[in-house]
Amino acid sequence: MMKVGVIGGGQLGRMLALAGTPLGMEFSFLDPADDACAAPVGKHLHAAYDAQAELQQLAQSMDVVTFEFENVPAEAVAYLAQHVPVFPNAESLRVARDRLNEKSMFRELDIPVTAFANVESQQQLDEAVAAMGLPAILKTRTLGYDGKGQKVLRSTDDVAGAHAELGGVPCLLEGFVNFTGEVSVIAVRGRDGEIACYPLAHNTHKDGILELSVASDNHPQQALAEDYARRVLEKLDYVGALGFEFFEVDGGLMANEIAPRVHNSGHWTIEGAECSQFENHLRAIAGLPLGSTALVGRSAMVNCIGRMPANAQVMPLADVHVHNYGKAEKPGRKVGHITLRSQTEERLRQAIESTRRLLSGLE
Amino acid sequence: MMKVGVIGGGQLGRMLALAGTPLGMEFSFLDPADDACAAPVGKHLHAAYDAQAELQQLAQSMDVVTFEFENVPAEAVAYLAQHVPVFPNAESLRVARDRLNEKSMFRELDIPVTAFANVESQQQLDEAVAAMGLPAILKTRTLGYDGKGQKVLRSTDDVAGAHAELGGVPCLLEGFVNFTGEVSVIAVRGRDGEIACYPLAHNTHKDGILELSVASDNHPQQALAEDYARRVLEKLDYVGALGFEFFEVDGGLMANEIAPRVHNSGHWTIEGAECSQFENHLRAIAGLPLGSTALVGRSAMVNCIGRMPANAQVMPLADVHVHNYGKAEKPGRKVGHITLRSQTEERLRQAIESTRRLLSGLE
Repeated sequence: MMKVGVIGGGQLGRMLALAGTPLGMEFSFLDPADDACAAPVGKHLHAAYDAQAELQQLAQSMDVVTFEFENVPAEAVAYLAQHVPVFPNAESLRVARDRLNEKSMFRELDIPVTAFANVESQQQLDEAVAAMGLPAILKTRTLGYDGKGQKVLRSTDDVAGAHAELGGVPCLLEGFVNFTGEVSVIAVRGRDGEIACYPLAHNTHKDGILELSVASDNHPQQALAEDYARRVLEKLDYVGALGFEFFEVDGGLMANEIAPRVHNSGHWTIEGAECSQFENHLRAIAGLPLGSTALVGRSAMVNCIGRMPANAQVMPLADVHVHNYGKAEKPGRKVGHITLRSQTEERLRQAIESTRRLLSGLE
Repeated sequence: MMKVGVIGGGQLGRMLALAGTPLGMEFSFLDPADDACAAPVGKHLHAAYDAQAELQQLAQSMDVVTFEFENVPAEAVAYLAQHVPVFPNAESLRVARDRLNEKSMFRELDIPVTAFANVESQQQLDEAVAAMGLPAILKTRTLGYDGKGQKVLRSTDDVAGAHAELGGVPCLLEGFVNFTGEVSVIAVRGRDGEIACYPLAHNTHKDGILELSVASDNHPQQALAEDYARRVLEKLDYVGALGFEFFEVDGGLMANEIAPRVHNSGHWTIEGAECSQFENHLRAIAGLPLGSTALVGRSAMVNCIGRMPANAQVMPLADVHVHNYGKAEKPGRKVGHITLRSQTEERLRQAIESTRRLLSGLE
């Protein structure tokens, strides 16, 4: 029985365990939350991410350790890595958790990226705005997610005091991108360097939170996205699944950001791909051959944000698969998702429509 | 969060929890075994099936209780049913756990069944053999599974002392059936009487243990099997999934036995059907609408008996999905299964062949 330690015990950990248990894996989750929703499917080490005793326990008794979020204390990763294989590696986390590192890497790898500038003071912000022009977006370099920790700057009024508004922490100013759509690719790299990529997903956000991902059948930029993903995976000597978000611009792609883990825009793969992103992440970190990323039918995912519909409401809809994370409902919180898998594009379109209508009725 | 209690914590309980957790269900398993393999995905009530304190705990804190095997003490079922919905009901268990009750019900429902006679002594056996002729099979009325608790009688020598050989317990003598194949249907009935049936599976046994199930695409006896299943489900006022095994005879079907639970010959439904037998069993007992039983591609299941192949051996094969039950290996023990799901019948045939070759190489 392979023992897998996961830093973080939220829904990503929960879905990792649901995918890995049939492979003969056993899971332990380090999470300070009382109500870590992965707890029912593994052992909950109920402690802070830097708790020495629990880190030691993971170091001594796990076969491999992974993460379900990128903001793990660097010291914890460094400690674990001395004793047990840790994937993705510390360098991948270091790059992915800081927008400056991330965008600098894209530039270095010749992956198109918007203009950006480091901002550690209001003066630096003023200078960067002068050079880049408006509109632009100021984002905290670390800890931003779901549209949090960022501010759109449209006028000089918006610029005044903006650095302090974001807490005076290190920020990145990013040029505005005129994009026609947002897509992401989930790419997986095994311990032996084998790479597999899922079909691109078209993503739609609502209030900065992912609301809908639709798996594409034959996206014209599939090969390009895979090429960019490969550059990143190989540069970082990455092992595991990685979510890579792009803007669709003028027939090309511009890198937005990477997430060094399984990714919300890949949740459709549980039913919609031959082997899910969760299973493939586990195969990768366990040193096993990767599974097929091919589509099973046509697939999409709709997030349940803030509220989870009752099973009795969802299940009468066609082609739905319920994923309730077992979390308390709270505005803006991802509490579950519905995977849609249909035999035809037309049926999928109808399933997306009826599911979105149901969910918007809950708000 | 719906709380589901399961009597028994083996692989069927484990797969129920893996299917039900995404629906927002939480599981507790009553099982006396130290190594109950469902324990990692729920709460393990580590006690005998008739342990008063644990039964009381289930009665008081569960929303619904179900079973993963039929030989639950009748008193335990009766006690639980006073306090909490219990599905399938006590009558279904009473009928299914005793071959005499079961075959009598088939006869009563005009479902073709082999000749049979109750045998509670050697004298009754001698009389039954005189009436029925040889060959015939003597089976214990209760507790037989995987070919255990039965003896084929071909000659009068075999008959002598046969009742004592099977422990002198109540037995059933069954006439020999000249069958051309074995098939089973998984049928599900909801609390509201809704019925859904999966495509028939062709089953192949080895040393009395199911080795291979292949889901049929368009079996000529599908409607007949569904008709027979419907009679049984409605007669018993059954709620949940039921496995119904048949012999294929001369263009028709002859009832072999029912299992009042999810069934090994339906494990292919995890990947091979829109909604698995596990999810549908849970939907049924929770009073939810049933899910689609339609095929996803072409599917089969190969049991791993006695030994589980290493992931690194299985995963390079095409179209495989590993289900390791996390059990200690032991000759004759079901320790896992491999689901095969292919896009074409030809690919499925190849996948079956390569998987069986791998597994037979382990023996």
